[in-house]
Amino acid sequence: MRYLPGQAQQLPGNRSALASYQASHFRFEVEGAVATLTLNRPERKNPLTFESYAELRDLFRALAYADDVKAVVITGAGENFCSGGDVHDIIGPLTQLDMPGLLAFTRMTGDLVKAMRACPQPVISAVDGICAGAGAILALSSDMRLGTARSKTAFLFTRVGLAGCDMGACALLPRVIGQGRAAELLYTGRSMSGSEAERWGFFNSISEPETLLADARALAASLAAGPTFAHGMTKKMLQQEWNMGVDEAIEAEAQAQAICMATNDFHRAYHAFVAKQRPVFEGD
Amino acid sequence: MRYLPGQAQQLPGNRSALASYQASHFRFEVEGAVATLTLNRPERKNPLTFESYAELRDLFRALAYADDVKAVVITGAGENFCSGGDVHDIIGPLTQLDMPGLLAFTRMTGDLVKAMRACPQPVISAVDGICAGAGAILALSSDMRLGTARSKTAFLFTRVGLAGCDMGACALLPRVIGQGRAAELLYTGRSMSGSEAERWGFFNSISEPETLLADARALAASLAAGPTFAHGMTKKMLQQEWNMGVDEAIEAEAQAQAICMATNDFHRAYHAFVAKQRPVFEGD
Amino acid sequence: MRYLPGQAQQLPGNRSALASYQASHFRFEVEGAVATLTLNRPERKNPLTFESYAELRDLFRALAYADDVKAVVITGAGENFCSGGDVHDIIGPLTQLDMPGLLAFTRMTGDLVKAMRACPQPVISAVDGICAGAGAILALSSDMRLGTARSKTAFLFTRVGLAGCDMGACALLPRVIGQGRAAELLYTGRSMSGSEAERWGFFNSISEPETLLADARALAASLAAGPTFAHGMTKKMLQQEWNMGVDEAIEAEAQAQAICMATNDFHRAYHAFVAKQRPVFEGD
Repeated sequence: MRYLPGQAQQLPGNRSALASYQASHFRFEVEGAVATLTLNRPERKNPLTFESYAELRDLFRALAYADDVKAVVITGAGENFCSGGDVHDIIGPLTQLDMPGLLAFTRMTGDLVKAMRACPQPVISAVDGICAGAGAILALSSDMRLGTARSKTAFLFTRVGLAGCDMGACALLPRVIGQGRAAELLYTGRSMSGSEAERWGFFNSISEPETLLADARALAASLAAGPTFAHGMTKKMLQQEWNMGVDEAIEAEAQAQAICMATNDFHRAYHAFVAKQRPVFEGD
Repeated sequence: MRYLPGQAQQLPGNRSALASYQASHFRFEVEGAVATLTLNRPERKNPLTFESYAELRDLFRALAYADDVKAVVITGAGENFCSGGDVHDIIGPLTQLDMPGLLAFTRMTGDLVKAMRACPQPVISAVDGICAGAGAILALSSDMRLGTARSKTAFLFTRVGLAGCDMGACALLPRVIGQGRAAELLYTGRSMSGSEAERWGFFNSISEPETLLADARALAASLAAGPTFAHGMTKKMLQQEWNMGVDEAIEAEAQAQAICMATNDFHRAYHAFVAKQRPVFEGD
Repeated sequence: MRYLPGQAQQLPGNRSALASYQASHFRFEVEGAVATLTLNRPERKNPLTFESYAELRDLFRALAYADDVKAVVITGAGENFCSGGDVHDIIGPLTQLDMPGLLAFTRMTGDLVKAMRACPQPVISAVDGICAGAGAILALSSDMRLGTARSKTAFLFTRVGLAGCDMGACALLPRVIGQGRAAELLYTGRSMSGSEAERWGFFNSISEPETLLADARALAASLAAGPTFAHGMTKKMLQQEWNMGVDEAIEAEAQAQAICMATNDFHRAYHAFVAKQRPVFEGD
């Protein structure tokens, strides 16, 4: 069964299921409550196209209403993560567009990042090999990133005559690795090695290439087995407090955490603790 | 003599003294101008209770008007910093509260962080052993943190079914250790080791357990012997500029530093320099 | 020929040339499209004076309109970067000023940072030896920093009785090295070593003293040979998005990058790629 956006409106609580979603421009598999999204044109290092951008955007928007997926892993087929926007499929056509057309494109790519940040599921990128351009942004826009020592992550927009300010990079990258290092990567377009990425806080950890995807899925599965409503609130507030003063953020968290204290998962945890058992969270 | 909030209003300049404050729910000692606040239920790794939260909040609020305390060290008794909100004393009762009651609690804990950030004294946490939950927030809300290699710092709200957005953590932690590392700690609740904490910028340095408290007090004493009015301005602007554009922050600092240039300590430093002496600062 | 601000208004597109600018209070040389600005009172470790502050501010303001300079290197003569505001030339007179006079000074120094952040050229500081006070701010306000292992960078305002909030330090430094480390440096005034600076992200890399300036110039030359209009947009957006929410930053980048896609450099890069050639960027 193909996922149909229109159906979502009719389900109770505006919720939908994505487990059986058949993706057209990448692989999408759900195991337990963990979705794995695999960019899958390995012969060209998994570039993005207009169509895959749009389908990714729509899928992450749909995830906001999905109640059967609790964490997402993004990876690439064939020992590379993603080579970014394809030169022939994307850069060429862009050179033919007028300004409204250009803005429609940059807004679409930006909407993908907005959708990745807006869905409640933690998103974990598993990065091996080449991770370039819009591919590097996919990783950056994720909540966490596992990488390999041999991976190369490059925000190489400058190499095609463009600016480093693409899909939110000038806002996101400084918060992850610091302002000075972000400036260097965005101005020069040079690759960040796996060990630099770990040392600078871009990668949460380094895996062997053979275990990378399993490690990312294990992390995702552990989150999916946790208090997923609360995880969604953590994600929302990491986004929401980005641009608040400290005192305003503290009040925002007082409200957000009070909401979480009214969930069943909070009660389950307490009763399990009292009974000296391990809590079983259900995400409500 | 017990500190009475009401009295503070009657002192000249709205100032009060805290050196003789007798704390009820923790130890509080002032040596020179350095206060040491010791969480002191070592048999349970120094958990927080409703009462100790409230007294901590009131004490940090009083510190805003204290003229005899110039720096604060927070530590825990018995080789642990703080195990956070006690499960029996806090989590249990919370499960019985209605929404206004829950929000009253999360606002009280948030008010403690606001008070720690609002008082002019630099706050230094000395972290050994367990530093968990609200204890980790106490350390995070401090201006600086000294730790030990064996310490374990965990934002483990997720383990009790709650979100990582507690007492400002989603705003504060990303600024200290970066957005990606903060996300991992807040989603997973895993412990950050002492060496990770130092490498990521959470700890300013690592001490041996035997010298940790002395090191923190020495740092506090060196700040207390400095231009303490100016230190208070540094602290205020680190808070105030959190959510300003760069140009607005620069103007804010032009005003703040002009105020400091009108202090006696600035003149003392200049005249000491000319006389080839070491300046003696008095904090005015 | 001395640069005259008035002339700039008469050039097409409000543009001016700075290659022949004769600096009065430092050295200023342009080679290719790279300007090197050398603080040049080595016998006193290159302190700043009222006059050099003002000329630096005016020069960086003029750079906003210069079309012959595409990147800037700041360095110091004689194995030191800059010792900051001179005690005799600056601190002494400041102790004699009234409040409007003090604010006029702090605003002037702040205006230098604003001008450094507002000009489109990437600014690279090459830091050897002493880098102190306002000198440390010059380095901090640059886009990138190359240093040496033996360099010592100190935000030592506290040593003269002042606050760490000078020229934007409380806003800038936490974004570069993290909030906890910034607090320590600003409260204590202690020196950051070269290896700390690299480890914490203050320095982008460490050079041997003999090659430091050449390394900085090579980096600047590589940027000057790139898509300089786009680099200016990267710099503008790193500044502009400082205080935006993530979604607003993404929309701002959609607009900024659409502008860059309408430049000739973007087309040059595409056609060079198709022709399997290296693109030659011209900055328009």
